[in-house]
Amino acid sequence: MDATPTPALSRPPASGEAVRIAAARVVGSAVEVRWGDGHVSRFHHVWLRDNCPLSRHPKSGHRLFETADIPRDIAPESLEVENGETLRVVWNESAGPGDGRKSAYAAGWLRTHCYSRGERERRRPRPKPWERETAEGRPVFDFRDLGGDERRLYAMLSEVRDHGFARLAGVPARRGAIRDAVQLFGYIRETNYGTVFDVESVPDADHLAYTARALGMHTDNPYRDHPPDLQFLHCLESTAKGGDSVLVDGFRVAEALRVENPRAFGVLCRIPASFQLAGGGVDLRSRAPVIQLDEWGAVQRVRFSNRAAAPLEAEEDLVPAFYAALRAFAETAERASFKFTFRMEPGDLYIVDNGRVLHGRTAFDESAGGHRLLQGCYADRDGLASRLRVFAGRFEPWRTDGAVP
Amino acid sequence: MDATPTPALSRPPASGEAVRIAAARVVGSAVEVRWGDGHVSRFHHVWLRDNCPLSRHPKSGHRLFETADIPRDIAPESLEVENGETLRVVWNESAGPGDGRKSAYAAGWLRTHCYSRGERERRRPRPKPWERETAEGRPVFDFRDLGGDERRLYAMLSEVRDHGFARLAGVPARRGAIRDAVQLFGYIRETNYGTVFDVESVPDADHLAYTARALGMHTDNPYRDHPPDLQFLHCLESTAKGGDSVLVDGFRVAEALRVENPRAFGVLCRIPASFQLAGGGVDLRSRAPVIQLDEWGAVQRVRFSNRAAAPLEAEEDLVPAFYAALRAFAETAERASFKFTFRMEPGDLYIVDNGRVLHGRTAFDESAGGHRLLQGCYADRDGLASRLRVFAGRFEPWRTDGAVP
Repeated sequence: MDATPTPALSRPPASGEAVRIAAARVVGSAVEVRWGDGHVSRFHHVWLRDNCPLSRHPKSGHRLFETADIPRDIAPESLEVENGETLRVVWNESAGPGDGRKSAYAAGWLRTHCYSRGERERRRPRPKPWERETAEGRPVFDFRDLGGDERRLYAMLSEVRDHGFARLAGVPARRGAIRDAVQLFGYIRETNYGTVFDVESVPDADHLAYTARALGMHTDNPYRDHPPDLQFLHCLESTAKGGDSVLVDGFRVAEALRVENPRAFGVLCRIPASFQLAGGGVDLRSRAPVIQLDEWGAVQRVRFSNRAAAPLEAEEDLVPAFYAALRAFAETAERASFKFTFRMEPGDLYIVDNGRVLHGRTAFDESAGGHRLLQGCYADRDGLASRLRVFAGRFEPWRTDGAVP
Repeated sequence: MDATPTPALSRPPASGEAVRIAAARVVGSAVEVRWGDGHVSRFHHVWLRDNCPLSRHPKSGHRLFETADIPRDIAPESLEVENGETLRVVWNESAGPGDGRKSAYAAGWLRTHCYSRGERERRRPRPKPWERETAEGRPVFDFRDLGGDERRLYAMLSEVRDHGFARLAGVPARRGAIRDAVQLFGYIRETNYGTVFDVESVPDADHLAYTARALGMHTDNPYRDHPPDLQFLHCLESTAKGGDSVLVDGFRVAEALRVENPRAFGVLCRIPASFQLAGGGVDLRSRAPVIQLDEWGAVQRVRFSNRAAAPLEAEEDLVPAFYAALRAFAETAERASFKFTFRMEPGDLYIVDNGRVLHGRTAFDESAGGHRLLQGCYADRDGLASRLRVFAGRFEPWRTDGAVP
């Protein structure tokens, strides 16, 4: 087991020069800061006044005045750089609590929040796309170590951040123990399936997951406006024949499509697919593109489920193109070199980023008396991301630049 | 109290002619259906084969074959219209379970899923924007009626759908009773604030909500990638001076901006704002535009909070425009004619669509011995929307056309 977190983000310039203010002056509606490493930042007057740390609640960081109350012609009356470490501003007009005329900014904070294109680009999240071989080499974490060892917990959470999944062993193989795994860092998201649900083959099932069928690669609950961000699956019994678990990196699938079939990629970014789950007193529906991009054009979310797809609602002329693109995605998602297949034994658990990693299973057979029983639950990524940031501040201070996604 | 649900959606053509198939023929890659009311639908072969109701799991509606397995040159070998009520197709190739050659579609289902632009446009959600006067006229529902009267519950939920808020009275004024209100239709979303949290003025508060300060108009938890869709607030004590509740329709605010300051409107749709809550062991961050539009250009979501705003990260040249637009939004949100102000008494509860309606409160004063105590919790809209669809199918069958958002 490897507990070394793998930085998925480029480090900021490590040198002290990057956080030394060499000079500051007013240029137009902004303060231009020249750094020891030569970089130049522009901070607009209104931005600086708005983000004055002296005007924040000391505990919550809540801003204590209204942005809209900042005078329209706010500008520095004077600027002072103290030891290259602090930028002091006296404003021409008052705003915010206290006398509202003075602000002070630590150089490190300013550099961290520089919004030049280059610095913003450097802070982008950098997930690590994977195929089968990489996935096979990722660590399995022992659950018993995670509760008492925050560095190891950080390493495990970093796996979810960087690779979109993490595998655990040693979770007690009893009903409900999955809750303890979620409570390491987050909160169970209750749905119509309950808080924790059994996944096993039952007679007269009302859901394909509750049969012994193979399940193709999919993300869960695409029929919600906001599908749960994280899925947990915990193995309690594993004596059936078959029923192996399969994971595929949806980001890798999307990137393959972008290169191999850019038309399909574009269509899946643009045309919303429809999803539905109806029956048993619920009627859940949502529409969203299969591939969602972030502001940098990077893949940010994937939503794909053959069995939960609902009738497409799209411009008539785009319908054939959508189907061709969906076929291309489905075929790419089933590519053998992408599929990480493994068998879960009692006590094993995996966590997937449900907006990234597709999961599925092979068919299984209980006719010889074996039984396959998993428990599942959902959580959201806000708890994960928050915990990662807090840990990063403690264990990898160079990460506390806002770069942790 | 008015328990009549207000249809926020236009009715489908009520006449039987609209769901009578007058004729069907193959035109290119689609089946053209001519309806009794003169409307013409085009259903592509691949779409029809994909959505064949005979290839679905009878309970879950899950599709029982892979869309990607539909033959590329799928086409009808024959078409038959039966009594104007059923379209029968025999396919040129097999796909799906059974013999995979025959499909049948009910006329009503087909018309409901027609994806011509006109029909899709007709099915759009139509929220009802409001200002103070309209809000003051909306009903207050007695909680004691809702558990046993599904029509009344449907009316209450329709208020949330159409106006983005609903007011209840008669919820027992004891801690935890708010759970019963959520459980009428949904699931509590647990966060770092817990499942149910107290909102009252406490000494040394770590959050502005827990002081006696006025709170400007805002949506809650903008620092999550997915803020909770619904917020519940329940009044337990109300003897402080002041502390009135205020609601503003964020959709109305956005629409006012679209007309009065289109540049600001455009900027707020395009440039993501930053939000953060840090301290007390959490570091929650998110970036999203203040105004989010749907595919029709209608306002779909609003996210606004002055106090939880974090340093903007945007293209340098856009920073001044963002601040000007944010100021315009904030000023519009505080417009007196938009503000619905009311006093909550013990037992009162309100539900807001947190992606639409901004809430706030006036300052209060407990120096004379009074006390203001609310309890709050969050839920997601998927449970609400699901329940609305199920009720709609029962009470207003003309709505079961997929139009319920």
